Amino acid sequence: MSKGEPTAADLGEFGLIDRLAAALGAPSDERLVVGIGDDAAVWRAGDAYVIGTTDTLVAGVHFLPDRVAWRDVGWKALAVNVSDVAAMGGTPSFALVTLCVPPETPAGTLDELYAGLRECAEVYGVTVAGGDIVSSSVFTVTVALAGAALVSDGGAPLLLRRNAARPGDLIAVTGPLGGSAGGLRGLREGTQLEHPSLLEAHMHFWPRVDAGDIAVRAGIRSGVDISDGLVQDLAHICEASNVHAELRLDRVPLHPDLIPAYPQDAPLMAATGGEDYELILVGSRGAIELADSALRRHLELPDDEQLTIVGEITAGPADVRVLDASGSEVKFARGGWDHLKRR
Amino acid sequence: MSKGEPTAADLGEFGLIDRLAAALGAPSDERLVVGIGDDAAVWRAGDAYVIGTTDTLVAGVHFLPDRVAWRDVGWKALAVNVSDVAAMGGTPSFALVTLCVPPETPAGTLDELYAGLRECAEVYGVTVAGGDIVSSSVFTVTVALAGAALVSDGGAPLLLRRNAARPGDLIAVTGPLGGSAGGLRGLREGTQLEHPSLLEAHMHFWPRVDAGDIAVRAGIRSGVDISDGLVQDLAHICEASNVHAELRLDRVPLHPDLIPAYPQDAPLMAATGGEDYELILVGSRGAIELADSALRRHLELPDDEQLTIVGEITAGPADVRVLDASGSEVKFARGGWDHLKRR
Repeated sequence: MSKGEPTAADLGEFGLIDRLAAALGAPSDERLVVGIGDDAAVWRAGDAYVIGTTDTLVAGVHFLPDRVAWRDVGWKALAVNVSDVAAMGGTPSFALVTLCVPPETPAGTLDELYAGLRECAEVYGVTVAGGDIVSSSVFTVTVALAGAALVSDGGAPLLLRRNAARPGDLIAVTGPLGGSAGGLRGLREGTQLEHPSLLEAHMHFWPRVDAGDIAVRAGIRSGVDISDGLVQDLAHICEASNVHAELRLDRVPLHPDLIPAYPQDAPLMAATGGEDYELILVGSRGAIELADSALRRHLELPDDEQLTIVGEITAGPADVRVLDASGSEVKFARGGWDHLKRR
Repeated sequence: MSKGEPTAADLGEFGLIDRLAAALGAPSDERLVVGIGDDAAVWRAGDAYVIGTTDTLVAGVHFLPDRVAWRDVGWKALAVNVSDVAAMGGTPSFALVTLCVPPETPAGTLDELYAGLRECAEVYGVTVAGGDIVSSSVFTVTVALAGAALVSDGGAPLLLRRNAARPGDLIAVTGPLGGSAGGLRGLREGTQLEHPSLLEAHMHFWPRVDAGDIAVRAGIRSGVDISDGLVQDLAHICEASNVHAELRLDRVPLHPDLIPAYPQDAPLMAATGGEDYELILVGSRGAIELADSALRRHLELPDDEQLTIVGEITAGPADVRVLDASGSEVKFARGGWDHLKRR
């Protein structure tokens, strides 16, 4: 190979995905509705639309094997995929589970992992239909999840797309943010036991299939789940839709235990911390209000699981401007998560 | 953990899969047609039937990164999954690709891998619809593949099941065997360049989607692909169908370059070597003959890609008896492949 050739770390996760998409060429199968670049893929199968997604957790990268419960790892491995299906407005159904297992792994560790998988599968109505188990020196769990899209009377799939935000749309989030970032910070600083609700938010989050389903029924057509952080995930919508977003930092709902734990940093942690797995929903005021009212009426959720409007979409450069209560711009280092990039 | 608790290596791949299946409980979703325990899962989506499978390749376990071309790894990563869909009698359609990448991996290595993936995707009509790329110290490529089952006029899926063999059925294979085992042996002994066609059979095999599709159209209802080895994969059918198999070793078609390379061991390598990715088809004489004739007529395949009858199914213990030309039993150490088990 030539000297100075770039490495995976130089390109980063998003660079590698772009490079893969380019190498594969433009897809030609007319059944493909959504390909690389959204929360999940969507394709037609007969008269149905399948939503397909996959996510992987690597020991030492995505979780610290000696600091977490393996049951939580099992939950999370499936839940991150459930959240991707929710972020498309769909309902999860069947999963394939791949485990790369160091041969010396105690069977009891796997039993705990399986219990967490089962718990999440039961809560979200997912059936594990198959998978693969192989040997590796690094423990890895990969879940591929298929779900179903709601289909209109005319036979079209009703989806939450990253590329469907329009100027004039409002930006809403489905719940309080920053809890997961607080839990991760506790783990890193060794203070996780002082803030158990934050640790819980980090390890045992609840994907919002309910909110995604109600959103598409209410006519919302754009959304994403908050895995990289509110600002970065909203930026994905701006880039895909070629619109600008104004985000009001003071309106971002905070996890209730985040302010006592990290009073200084709470707002920025909520805006840039990843892995809350609430949804960002972008739509007309009417659609957002309809969805909010449906969530309140039908699901009788507590107040903090309702929609909160945190900003609006405008015409302008395809990025996110963060504003404080007075309307002044808040500048901070771009957050978000790229495991491959050097920091 | 308690002293003496079993490890993953003690349980082995099949033990771990059984344990996972038990931990998950019996599936209750009435849309599930085939769950854990066949070559792939099958579930209903609207009026279609989705075939779902996943397989993973780990560097150092499934391939030797410094001895193979990365383009071949890309081909193989998708092709092993295509073969699982073929083994159900289905047609592959959409793939999700997960890469665990050491940060120092040269981008050019990934480009080669992507080129091999693309080559296989184009040959088999597969569209890569998404995936995940993460950091790990061990290079791993995992593909999840969805395909479609042929559906009868009555709306039922037509499948090749492991559990559908019946006494009186004939056992056929779709092509010559042992080439992959020969290629692997060459790699291990450092003589791979002396037998390029065997190396090719090992690294760049051609899944038999054509044969699986014709088999279900001809009324064959039982089959499996040869990934673990003819004897072991046939044993999977015997166990799932609770039938006995008599396999005639002298009738097993051999890769043409296997006898010159390994004259002594060729027949046993063909019977027990893994990863040929031809299909074992089990059905009535009429169905086997119909499929064979359809393959000859419609596909105009060379003679060695036709069906060869290698044995028959009888009532009796759920295992495989290997016989020589005189009908005497051939005894040998059980072959097959379990990466996790200690040897």
